[in-house]
Amino acid sequence: MKIIYSDKHAQHDPQSFFVRGVKQRSAEQPERAERLLAAAKGAGHEIVGAKAHGTAPAETVHTPEYIDFLKTIARDWAKLPNASVEVMPNVHPARYPATYPKALAGRAGWHQVDLACPIGPHTWDAALAASESAATATDLVLDGAHEAYALCRPPGHHAYADMAGGFCFLNNTAIAAQRLRQKHQRVAVLDVDVHHGNGTQGIFFERDDVLTISIHADPDNYYPYFWGHAHETGVGKGHGFNLNLPLPLGSGDAPWLAAGDKALARIRDFAPTVLVVALGLDASESDPLQGLKVTGAGFHAMAGKIASLGLPTVLVQEGGYLSDDLGRNLVQFLSGFEKGRS
Amino acid sequence: MKIIYSDKHAQHDPQSFFVRGVKQRSAEQPERAERLLAAAKGAGHEIVGAKAHGTAPAETVHTPEYIDFLKTIARDWAKLPNASVEVMPNVHPARYPATYPKALAGRAGWHQVDLACPIGPHTWDAALAASESAATATDLVLDGAHEAYALCRPPGHHAYADMAGGFCFLNNTAIAAQRLRQKHQRVAVLDVDVHHGNGTQGIFFERDDVLTISIHADPDNYYPYFWGHAHETGVGKGHGFNLNLPLPLGSGDAPWLAAGDKALARIRDFAPTVLVVALGLDASESDPLQGLKVTGAGFHAMAGKIASLGLPTVLVQEGGYLSDDLGRNLVQFLSGFEKGRS
Repeated sequence: MKIIYSDKHAQHDPQSFFVRGVKQRSAEQPERAERLLAAAKGAGHEIVGAKAHGTAPAETVHTPEYIDFLKTIARDWAKLPNASVEVMPNVHPARYPATYPKALAGRAGWHQVDLACPIGPHTWDAALAASESAATATDLVLDGAHEAYALCRPPGHHAYADMAGGFCFLNNTAIAAQRLRQKHQRVAVLDVDVHHGNGTQGIFFERDDVLTISIHADPDNYYPYFWGHAHETGVGKGHGFNLNLPLPLGSGDAPWLAAGDKALARIRDFAPTVLVVALGLDASESDPLQGLKVTGAGFHAMAGKIASLGLPTVLVQEGGYLSDDLGRNLVQFLSGFEKGRS
Repeated sequence: MKIIYSDKHAQHDPQSFFVRGVKQRSAEQPERAERLLAAAKGAGHEIVGAKAHGTAPAETVHTPEYIDFLKTIARDWAKLPNASVEVMPNVHPARYPATYPKALAGRAGWHQVDLACPIGPHTWDAALAASESAATATDLVLDGAHEAYALCRPPGHHAYADMAGGFCFLNNTAIAAQRLRQKHQRVAVLDVDVHHGNGTQGIFFERDDVLTISIHADPDNYYPYFWGHAHETGVGKGHGFNLNLPLPLGSGDAPWLAAGDKALARIRDFAPTVLVVALGLDASESDPLQGLKVTGAGFHAMAGKIASLGLPTVLVQEGGYLSDDLGRNLVQFLSGFEKGRS
């Protein structure tokens, strides 16, 4: 399988993350992508560089003011007296009628929904390169490849049209799905990251041309807390075109694969002509975030099920944090996928 | 003038506050209230203890789930492994359709809009006592006093019906205004704190029985950034019953007093039978927050103008931070008020 990769991700190395009010280093580290790349290479997959696309792919799902914010905020923030190296929000517009702010602190709070998406001097470069990897992989599939895998870092599925969050800045999965609409009337997105794909859901929540499905740890006890419940099914024209399949914390392979069967049934019913998989590997039993307890065999089996749909597929890397199994689980998934489609 | 005070505020001593991504000690310190009390005593005002009211006054403007959150979160948070002493939010529901969360981190992000309202073990006790001070002062005015001053700490005007923010937890000003509705058909609120009274605005935004007016530093460059613009005039039945008078950063007495004249003209037009003044003293030229440049003479003059309305008035302490002028400015305001009504 072709693996699309850019080494620009390494310039983004977020230092700050808060757990229960205590600052610690972010789990979203460059070594993640390096381990995934090494494992994919080791398994004989072909590595392909991301092609330059500029901001065009990102512009199809993100607002102009948000893209401008991501491009400029780190530079402007650095000019403030006594500012932190990473841009960190400290005040948010919340859910009351609000006006788009002019001050940098206000813009940070408007566009960064949590303390898990600090913006450093090169975050924009890394996020842009990840979106270009997603676009490059998508173009391969648009041009006839049965599948391609975008090794994106930073991940994307928590990013809304105008909001970063949970390690994510540009929504690579949504960018791939929207790009596939160039040739496909109906696109399905299946998100198997341990966290609900709230940004992707938000971007397509009012649309019936992109079906969004997410299998994840129950948000009652897990990030992103406010989204990912079964009752979130889309609004307006999009009603019925979002499916959330939350699982109890600590669930293992069997419930995860059963949720996969439900997802596939809904996808078959929708009858898309192409698929995007938001491929988080943090449902792993070895993942430091410890949300679900999926084994390597579980990843292999899920991939085989997905491949059995027979759809051209763009695989987009989402979460998955440092553990000895990180690379192995990717290889398990990719081999399961290749086996399942043959 | 009667000064209503409770010493329970001193148990709330927030340690954490973020400016441009850098943690520092909060400016909202117990010494604020102690200096205000000493100055009021020194000027011969009568100190009266706050009467016990429990949560009844707070319940008239805040939601049950928010009051429950404030009462219980510090205790529950302390049971989490490796949690900070103060409850600090790290993820927010923002402006997309969201479900009320079950997890503590989710509830913190739902009810704490920024990093300027950490909740310590005794924050609830202090906030409740401040709301009782406001209720006690209000009852004096309901019972015939021409005016009373509630020396509230923590302040309240940034707190919404279900959201803490900017050092504020229970909205003492809104509680006073709502309590006055027991005997008054039309209540006016005039907020002279250097920050926009966004919580008070939010609580009464759809109502025509409580006129809300705020004079403050322009939110384009100043907290709370998203609110306080002139175009925010109320919605539905409340349209036209909210007036924001933002001033350029660093404005001195003359523009501040001119804004006061505009506010008083609108109040006269509304023809209320009672008034609440949200008495922040942080517009002072000596205040560490440096938003406006109002002098002691300016506070004296503003108070005299307000008193000339001839309305029974509840004065509620809002912001104003440690400087040598803090107590003096209170005394200037109170003497200006007493002189203006005579």
